[in-house]
Amino acid sequence: MNKTCKLFILFFSFTLLYSCTNPNNKNNDLKFGIVIHGGAGTIEKQNYSNERIAEYYDKLNEALATGYSVLENGGSSIDAVEQTIMVLENSPLFNAGKGAVFTANGINELDAAIMDGSNLNAGAVAGITTIKNPIKLARKIMEKSKHVMLVGKGAEIFAAEQNLEIVDPSYFYTEERWQALQRIKEDEIKQKAKDESYLNNIYDYKFGTVGCAALDKNGNLAAGTSTGGMTNKKYGRVGDVPIIGAGTYANNNTCALSATGHGEFFIRNVVTHDISAMMEYKNITLNQAAEKVVMEKLVKQKGEGGVIGIDKNANITMTFNTTGMFRGFKTSDGKSEVKIFKE
Amino acid sequence: MNKTCKLFILFFSFTLLYSCTNPNNKNNDLKFGIVIHGGAGTIEKQNYSNERIAEYYDKLNEALATGYSVLENGGSSIDAVEQTIMVLENSPLFNAGKGAVFTANGINELDAAIMDGSNLNAGAVAGITTIKNPIKLARKIMEKSKHVMLVGKGAEIFAAEQNLEIVDPSYFYTEERWQALQRIKEDEIKQKAKDESYLNNIYDYKFGTVGCAALDKNGNLAAGTSTGGMTNKKYGRVGDVPIIGAGTYANNNTCALSATGHGEFFIRNVVTHDISAMMEYKNITLNQAAEKVVMEKLVKQKGEGGVIGIDKNANITMTFNTTGMFRGFKTSDGKSEVKIFKE
Repeated sequence: MNKTCKLFILFFSFTLLYSCTNPNNKNNDLKFGIVIHGGAGTIEKQNYSNERIAEYYDKLNEALATGYSVLENGGSSIDAVEQTIMVLENSPLFNAGKGAVFTANGINELDAAIMDGSNLNAGAVAGITTIKNPIKLARKIMEKSKHVMLVGKGAEIFAAEQNLEIVDPSYFYTEERWQALQRIKEDEIKQKAKDESYLNNIYDYKFGTVGCAALDKNGNLAAGTSTGGMTNKKYGRVGDVPIIGAGTYANNNTCALSATGHGEFFIRNVVTHDISAMMEYKNITLNQAAEKVVMEKLVKQKGEGGVIGIDKNANITMTFNTTGMFRGFKTSDGKSEVKIFKE
Repeated sequence: MNKTCKLFILFFSFTLLYSCTNPNNKNNDLKFGIVIHGGAGTIEKQNYSNERIAEYYDKLNEALATGYSVLENGGSSIDAVEQTIMVLENSPLFNAGKGAVFTANGINELDAAIMDGSNLNAGAVAGITTIKNPIKLARKIMEKSKHVMLVGKGAEIFAAEQNLEIVDPSYFYTEERWQALQRIKEDEIKQKAKDESYLNNIYDYKFGTVGCAALDKNGNLAAGTSTGGMTNKKYGRVGDVPIIGAGTYANNNTCALSATGHGEFFIRNVVTHDISAMMEYKNITLNQAAEKVVMEKLVKQKGEGGVIGIDKNANITMTFNTTGMFRGFKTSDGKSEVKIFKE
C-alpha cells in the first residue's frame, strides 16, 4: 500500500467517524421528505371536470417535485418550503398568490407565514395587495427584519426595500374568482347567502390555502402557508394562516405543520402548536396528535379543515375532516402520494 | 313552629341542596380571583419619582378593585377582564389606550385581544388609531362578528357599526410619549439607537402592555391584553398581544393568561398556549409551567418579559425575567398584592 493510499484510507475513516458522531447529524440515515396541501373543503368529484382534476394533479406533482429536488440536492427545508409554495402561488388553481379570491371590496388581500423549526424564527404577513409571492415576503420578514408579523401598507414598504417583485393589483384578477364574488353578492341580496351551508357547498368560499412542510437532510424542519383569504371577506379580517401556532408551526423537537380550513376555529384552538405540544408533552405520534385535534377537538366545534405535517423522522400526516383536501407527499424512503378526495 | 317558618326552612333547605348539586357550580367553594399587569421591562426604582410610583400603585389598585368587584357581585370573568383593562387603557401611565406610544410615523397604533375560556371564543384587533378602548372592540369582534381578528381600517368600520366610542387620534397624544419618540429619533441620527441594550435601558421602548386574567364564581376563566406597541415601530409591525396563544389565552380546562414583553419572542414560542398545554398534557401546575416557559425557554433565547395568570382553582402566577413588572392580584381567599419591582 503506497503512502497516498494510506492517507486516503485515514482521511476516509476520519470522515466516516466524524459524520457518525457529528451532533448536527441528528438524522443519521439522512431521511427527508415533503408534504403539501392546496386547501381543504367541500371538494367533491362531481363538481370538477376531468380536465380540471388533471390540472390539479399536475400542479400538485410539480410543486412536490420542486421541493423534493431541493431536499434531494441537500438544500434546506426552508428553501424547499418557499420554492414549493411559490409554484402553488403562481398557479391560478389555488386560493393563494395569482389565484387569490376577492374581498367584499373587490380586491385581493394576501396573507402568508413561514417558520424555521431549527431556531423557531418565523415571518408572517397579512393584508398585502401588491406582492407577487407573499411567501417570499414572509421569509424576508423572518430573515431581514427584527419582527415576526407585518401587516398592510407597512409590510409593502418593507417588501419594496427588500426588492421583492411588486405587481399591479390587477395581476391577481382571475375571471373565475371575480365571478364567485359576484354570485355571492347577488345571493346576499336574495338573502340566500345567509345560509352558511349553502355558501360552503356552492362556493367553498371559506377555504383554499396552500401550504408545505419539509424535513431536510440535516434534520431541520420548516413549514409555510399562503392564502388569499375568504371570498367576500370584510373588515380587514385575518385568518389563521399568518398566526404562528394556528395555521403554521415548525419545531425541530417535534414536527412542521401547515393548516387549511375555517381559520377562526384554527386560531381559537391554536391548532398547529397544539399538535406539536401533544407530541412533545404527551409523547404521542404526529398522526395521533393530528387526529386528536382535527378529528376530535375541531369536529366537536364544527371547525372544518385539515392539516399536513412531517415529523423529525419523516413521518407524514395529511388529516382532514372535510370531503376533500388537495394534498400530497414524497419521502426519501420512496413513498409518494397525490390525492384530492376522501378515499 | 308556625306554617311560615316551616315553609321558610323547606325553601332554605332546597336552596342549599340546589346550590350544592347544581352542575354549573363546578367551583363548589366559589373561589374566584383576578390578576393584572401593566407591562414588564427594565423597571428600576431609581428611574421613578416617589410620586410617580404612588400613581402607579393607585391605578393598579383601582384596576384590581374594579375587576374584583365585578367578580364579587357574581359578574362574569369576561366582564371583569374588560372593565379592568379599560381602567388601565384610560390612564396615561400605561402603554395602552390613552398612554399608547408613538410609531415611527408619529401616530398611535393600538392592538388588543380577549378570550373566553368557557368556549374558546376570542376577539383580536391590530393597528387601530381611533377607538378609545381597544379591549371593547376586541370583545365586540368576539361576540358580534364571525371572525377572531380584524386589522386596520376594516376593524374601525366594524367598530363604528357597533357604536363604539370613536376618538380623534389626538386623544392618544401625551407629551411624555411624544418626547420619547423624539429622543429615539435624535439618537437614531446619532447612531446611538442601534444599540439595543441602550434603547432598552433608556426608553424601555419595546415594552408596556396591560393585561388581566380572571376566574369568576361559575368557574369560567377569561383573559385580555391591550397595547400601544413599540415606540418608533415601523412597517405595520404586529406584536404578540393580538395573537391568540401568544400574548393572550384562556381555557377553562387549564388557566387564563396575559403576557407582556418583547413580542416577537412571545409569538415564536406561542407562550400563553404553551403554558396551558404543559398544564394539560404534562399535568404540572400553572406556576411550574410559567417558570418553565418564561424563566427557561425565553431566558435561553434572551426573550424578555413576563406573564400573569390564574388557573381554574384560583392559583395565581406573576412570572417575569426582567427587572420589574407592574402587577397585582386579589383572590376570594383574602390574598392580595400589588408590586412593581423585583423583590
